[in-house]
Amino acid sequence: MTLPRLRLKANADRRLRAGHLWVYSNEVDVVATPLTAFEPGDQAILETTSGKPLGLVALSPNNLICARLFSRDTGYLLDKSLLVHRFKVALSLRERLFGSHCYRLVYGDSDFLPGLVVDRFNDILVVQIASATMERQRDAILAALLQVFKPQGVLWKNDGSARAAEGLSSYVEVAYGEVPDWVALEENGVRFEAPVREGQKTGWFYDHRLNRARLAPYVEGKRVLDLFSYIGGWGVQAAAFGASEVMCVDASGFALDGVERNATLNGLAEKLVCVEGDVFEALKELKAGEEKFDVIVADPPAFIKKRKDLKNGEAAYRRLNEQAMRLLNKDGILVSASCSMHLPEDDLQNILLGSARHLDRNLQILERGAQGPDHPVHPAIPETRYIKSLTCRLLPS
Amino acid sequence: MTLPRLRLKANADRRLRAGHLWVYSNEVDVVATPLTAFEPGDQAILETTSGKPLGLVALSPNNLICARLFSRDTGYLLDKSLLVHRFKVALSLRERLFGSHCYRLVYGDSDFLPGLVVDRFNDILVVQIASATMERQRDAILAALLQVFKPQGVLWKNDGSARAAEGLSSYVEVAYGEVPDWVALEENGVRFEAPVREGQKTGWFYDHRLNRARLAPYVEGKRVLDLFSYIGGWGVQAAAFGASEVMCVDASGFALDGVERNATLNGLAEKLVCVEGDVFEALKELKAGEEKFDVIVADPPAFIKKRKDLKNGEAAYRRLNEQAMRLLNKDGILVSASCSMHLPEDDLQNILLGSARHLDRNLQILERGAQGPDHPVHPAIPETRYIKSLTCRLLPS
Repeated sequence: MTLPRLRLKANADRRLRAGHLWVYSNEVDVVATPLTAFEPGDQAILETTSGKPLGLVALSPNNLICARLFSRDTGYLLDKSLLVHRFKVALSLRERLFGSHCYRLVYGDSDFLPGLVVDRFNDILVVQIASATMERQRDAILAALLQVFKPQGVLWKNDGSARAAEGLSSYVEVAYGEVPDWVALEENGVRFEAPVREGQKTGWFYDHRLNRARLAPYVEGKRVLDLFSYIGGWGVQAAAFGASEVMCVDASGFALDGVERNATLNGLAEKLVCVEGDVFEALKELKAGEEKFDVIVADPPAFIKKRKDLKNGEAAYRRLNEQAMRLLNKDGILVSASCSMHLPEDDLQNILLGSARHLDRNLQILERGAQGPDHPVHPAIPETRYIKSLTCRLLPS
Repeated sequence: MTLPRLRLKANADRRLRAGHLWVYSNEVDVVATPLTAFEPGDQAILETTSGKPLGLVALSPNNLICARLFSRDTGYLLDKSLLVHRFKVALSLRERLFGSHCYRLVYGDSDFLPGLVVDRFNDILVVQIASATMERQRDAILAALLQVFKPQGVLWKNDGSARAAEGLSSYVEVAYGEVPDWVALEENGVRFEAPVREGQKTGWFYDHRLNRARLAPYVEGKRVLDLFSYIGGWGVQAAAFGASEVMCVDASGFALDGVERNATLNGLAEKLVCVEGDVFEALKELKAGEEKFDVIVADPPAFIKKRKDLKNGEAAYRRLNEQAMRLLNKDGILVSASCSMHLPEDDLQNILLGSARHLDRNLQILERGAQGPDHPVHPAIPETRYIKSLTCRLLPS
């Protein structure tokens, strides 16, 4: 194999030896190995300043992160054969963990497949490609998926925001077989259908699976409010776990149609109430109407998408959680989640504490949840960790 | 009510208003309100420098933490009546959460009862008093417990290390009724008996309940190693969840008798193997004997008891986890726990990453566990958070 080499500057190998997988463009010895010699998606042997190989990388030569390590063994190129191997390694974990074939099958860097996400809905696979490297491997990815999983259908859901930076266009199209608009899945024993074409991301958020499961002991016989409900991941499960009534609030009528669909699927339609509208406005109206809830789930979209949004985003989390707290019955439970990678769990906890003190309430943090095990965290790459969920009890001061 | 006042210096009220409950001796305006005027366990109205009341505190005038806020409402003294109220508030959470009456009923500051811990084993209560204030309230505590819980027996397990600093003697004695040496409990559907007199702490560690429950999907049909097993909290549950074989290692023969007792109680004796000895030595011998395991649980006692132990303690966690990793089969799972309050979760994760890299292995963090909801965290008091549990998958590089 005569791959080109990509040489690092002195000491730039340390972080990679310590476990990280990314190479920044200012770490490359561009005199020895100019980045301009590479096309997006090219593969190379990454080497130290003294020429010692560290593994194989795939390049995005025009990006700040100009290369990603996909193997520390220089013997295996990124091709169908390596993809098959990686898919099998990823599969063995998921099959050990879950009773049904519904899970995130591949989670990018954490599964040593940078730029690739695959969500599995039984026999339907929804694939998200976020890098030029993986886009070049598209045929190999499909062939490897067909070989390992023999799916009924595969969907390219290639409309993520990261694609533009890689010079990739945005598209959603069937890669193989038949893919219905709404695809069945099961989570924590509850049935759902997810809109894989029209929905958010891959259509479903498997990342909160364990946190939703932990709703069970809190909601039995209780009135529950699900904010930013999307298609009812939390709300319908709360109802299935015995909540007496669940109100789902979302700005999207399409999402709320999904709530109704999923509630009906589980024979729970009479327990669910949907409110369409801006969540912050809805919270004000509920307060004005003196509505109260025993359990409130606040799982908003990322308020902090980039580091520069930090201050405004934190203010939004504060506003959301404080308004939610105002609607809690005595001895109420707030499940406060965040999927903002830039918001550390401690900051979310401080926001909740501040809100509770502002309302002169005492706060107990009962549980702290993270993304489920089908979204493994790469311990050297903080960016792979993003889900936080704090279950809080609010008490009179 | 004519309580004495304890006046804070200027700005010293900020942290308390923000949610904290502790007053440090250097924050007190000792000219206005000398600490020497107080006896341990005295109660006072805490006030700002301008005389505004902040709540009621109980004093340990000779300690660095010289007072603890037990109520922001100045209307209620710490007495039997307040204890009854607090016990009921604590109980309502636990009864909502758990199917059996087996849980930490009171967890100190987090339940607004500083210096008091109560573990409930159905009709037996084991009480730990850690402060002079609570020691003075001993009769009131017992009376309140009898009123609310009507237990068969109450045990003072007053031998914790914090007592000496409060000038309190160490003793274990029955406070009420009958308390057997081994007391029955249930956790995650598995039966146990805990040695409430002779065992560690209150005899049982309820704090890892949810983390032990999460063993289930990982251990079915697998060979499991339980390090620092104590009486089998993890090991016996692993066997109950379907492990093919479980080896428990502990330095205490008494603890291992407990493992056998608890295995037998669940009809699992033939699955359990006990090894008595130093865990680090045992790990070496297992390595020399080329023993391999699919799942290893490493839940040691606190290696970092005080901040000054940090460096040595981190080295011990590193040694333990690295030696454990060497015994893992391919695609093995390590559940690495720490109860050292001084070791942040991120540091434990870095230790695991370092160990994996040292062995040239890849590490995925699958789950991050915390203390269960019967050990609520007070969000303003980091010291109330101590349990970490990282479930990791170790893969070839």
